[in-house]
Amino acid sequence: MSVGVVRVGLLGLGTVGGGVIKTIRSQQEKLSLRLGKRIEIVKALVRDSEKERAVHVEPSILTTNFEDVLKSDVDIVVEVMGGVDPTYDYVRALIEKGCHVVTANKELLAKRGTELVELANQHQVHLAYEASVAGGIPILSVLRQFLRTNDISGVRGILNGTTNFILTKMEAEQLSYQEVLKQAQELGYAEADPRSDVEGFDAMYKLYILAQLVYGESLPLADVVRKGISDLSAGHIRIASELGYRIKLIAQAYQTDEGIRLSVQPTMLPLGHPLAQIQDAFNAVQLSGNIVGDLLFTGRGAGELPTASAVVEDLAYLLTQPFTPHPVWRENTASHLAAQPEASQRSLCYLEGSCPSATPDRVLHFLRAAGVSISKLKVQFDLGGVLRAGLITSGLNEEHEALLTSDFGLSVRRFPILESAES
Amino acid sequence: MSVGVVRVGLLGLGTVGGGVIKTIRSQQEKLSLRLGKRIEIVKALVRDSEKERAVHVEPSILTTNFEDVLKSDVDIVVEVMGGVDPTYDYVRALIEKGCHVVTANKELLAKRGTELVELANQHQVHLAYEASVAGGIPILSVLRQFLRTNDISGVRGILNGTTNFILTKMEAEQLSYQEVLKQAQELGYAEADPRSDVEGFDAMYKLYILAQLVYGESLPLADVVRKGISDLSAGHIRIASELGYRIKLIAQAYQTDEGIRLSVQPTMLPLGHPLAQIQDAFNAVQLSGNIVGDLLFTGRGAGELPTASAVVEDLAYLLTQPFTPHPVWRENTASHLAAQPEASQRSLCYLEGSCPSATPDRVLHFLRAAGVSISKLKVQFDLGGVLRAGLITSGLNEEHEALLTSDFGLSVRRFPILESAES
Repeated sequence: MSVGVVRVGLLGLGTVGGGVIKTIRSQQEKLSLRLGKRIEIVKALVRDSEKERAVHVEPSILTTNFEDVLKSDVDIVVEVMGGVDPTYDYVRALIEKGCHVVTANKELLAKRGTELVELANQHQVHLAYEASVAGGIPILSVLRQFLRTNDISGVRGILNGTTNFILTKMEAEQLSYQEVLKQAQELGYAEADPRSDVEGFDAMYKLYILAQLVYGESLPLADVVRKGISDLSAGHIRIASELGYRIKLIAQAYQTDEGIRLSVQPTMLPLGHPLAQIQDAFNAVQLSGNIVGDLLFTGRGAGELPTASAVVEDLAYLLTQPFTPHPVWRENTASHLAAQPEASQRSLCYLEGSCPSATPDRVLHFLRAAGVSISKLKVQFDLGGVLRAGLITSGLNEEHEALLTSDFGLSVRRFPILESAES
Repeated sequence: MSVGVVRVGLLGLGTVGGGVIKTIRSQQEKLSLRLGKRIEIVKALVRDSEKERAVHVEPSILTTNFEDVLKSDVDIVVEVMGGVDPTYDYVRALIEKGCHVVTANKELLAKRGTELVELANQHQVHLAYEASVAGGIPILSVLRQFLRTNDISGVRGILNGTTNFILTKMEAEQLSYQEVLKQAQELGYAEADPRSDVEGFDAMYKLYILAQLVYGESLPLADVVRKGISDLSAGHIRIASELGYRIKLIAQAYQTDEGIRLSVQPTMLPLGHPLAQIQDAFNAVQLSGNIVGDLLFTGRGAGELPTASAVVEDLAYLLTQPFTPHPVWRENTASHLAAQPEASQRSLCYLEGSCPSATPDRVLHFLRAAGVSISKLKVQFDLGGVLRAGLITSGLNEEHEALLTSDFGLSVRRFPILESAES
């Protein structure tokens, strides 16, 4: 590393990349004081070097050719371009040149993290990725700290700000998913192609990174249960609320008797649950340690500056720490992911239909005769004669669901319930 | 340090000390694996070596004589005896022998921390005290991390579990302070002599430790505004709730134009404020950074195991880190603490009295004529003709308070309002 200057290369100069430049500039004095070195961005790989940008950058550092970054003799690369292809190859080439890596790319880590960790260890460079999970919340460093003394029994949280914003708005303003998505896109909270957020991929990658850290295993990504929010209706949200629940897209990793289970899915939370209080674009992560108990961390999980804060913290951290090898995840050969939750768990079952045979009495009679226990019930009819019902059930299985559809003409949606720690 | 074994001495073997022994035992395997060394408690200073204890300890390691600890050739001392006298002298003697220190003692750090930090630096030993603030919440390490890249504009939180438990119970069960205190003492949540908790000393020491870290200055402890909860009545809590507020004992440190201001006092929080959701014996700390935004950390702030978790984490940390000098706080010669908040701030003013001249109309007329603006009002009369009123005011000062007492025979209590970040 050159004396007095840290040469940084940037892969990508979108929202987060702009935030990184702003943060390094506004905190330059503080950083220099602590690091004894000035951070200088010497090269930035962009798609279009002519594009207008919110942050001023010397045109001479911009390039559209990765080879220019590779030749620029950078000490550290900050990867905020996203995606796996060609990002993986770029990061790999830089590690092989002995360059430290700071990345905010959850997809890259979830899909190729094991290889990158091994490569970084082999070349004795840092691979830091705090910014990839929960933006400004320093959840990875906190987890590493707790893992020194605690057995972590579970991690759960709200890891995607876009979907949490949409769900909050749908409930508060009684709007449909499509209406709120449009607003979110106009506000810049959701992307033109929103699938990565609304179908749960983004949250899944983040959960996966957390889970590998907690369980020390390379888990099969394909086995993660993943459901998004795009099929949620105002009816689901209203019935949930009348039953005392709020729907959140909950990411969870926990140990079951059959192995580690990872899921991202719309989940019912009792209104008093701490995660039910997390609204708008906020993220939150709850850890359960055998010694420390439950801890909850809340903050902005995305956006230019919170994510940039995590990137620059990683930068500052690796500049003050000697290299220590990153723990390598054990290969998980047998699938450790448990199957679907058993039917015996409590769930909120939402029914909707207009078939005249689907009277509440007949439906309830059928379910009770089938051995399903029902602890709470809300039924609504609208002016058009459409029945909407919410039931808190245990013992309901897929067979029952099929019969409710075939014999009663009802559409059925079953949501898992996250019980309160207190209850 | 002996090869393969870390020799630990314990000062104090109360609730937290017992938790430390339990944690080291239950996590011994994990700790040995990570540290490459076994942790062994070789000596424990106690007041009474014959006393029955919840945790089994070899009688041979117990001593009532500090000299025995000093002679035991310990690598690390864990100080959980509390107090300043004789604790300071003991810790000092151990540092001078080259012994690392892990402490949970907030009073010691607040009153003699500067000296201990200098002494530890001089002897190149670690002085670790994560457990002194907010139990299992790793707030000091998180703060240190954020300070590398963020300017922290303020820290606020609920730092004392006992008082939060009492306030939660008073509201939920409409009981008086004395009734709940008695319950809390029976449950072991409050001590026989509860002053350190209920008068705000405990929260003040913790706030002070946080503030020195954030502002890098040795602040005058005597200038911290400190008010406890022992004079709060069911009437205060009821009127607050009717106006949409909840009373919490809030510890705050923030920069004002006149300097840094530290306060611990009963404060009104809008019900939607994240800190208003923190109930029972939980603690929470909110940080505001210029890059990362607002972050909130919640967890059990006290108790045997959460505090022990923080102690053992400190132990594990210092065993894996080379010594680096602790930053020395700049001497704060001029008092940087601002005076009382200006009268222009919004506050909730509680009035109580039975004087027949204190009709709501006359009181309001007087206040408006005096230029006090009133945005919200709740008035109650009980069967005995006692008036209780709550007013959201701005512009009310001590002069007005005096006149309300002398001319209207009213007792007056003014509470600051913590505005929501959103509003």
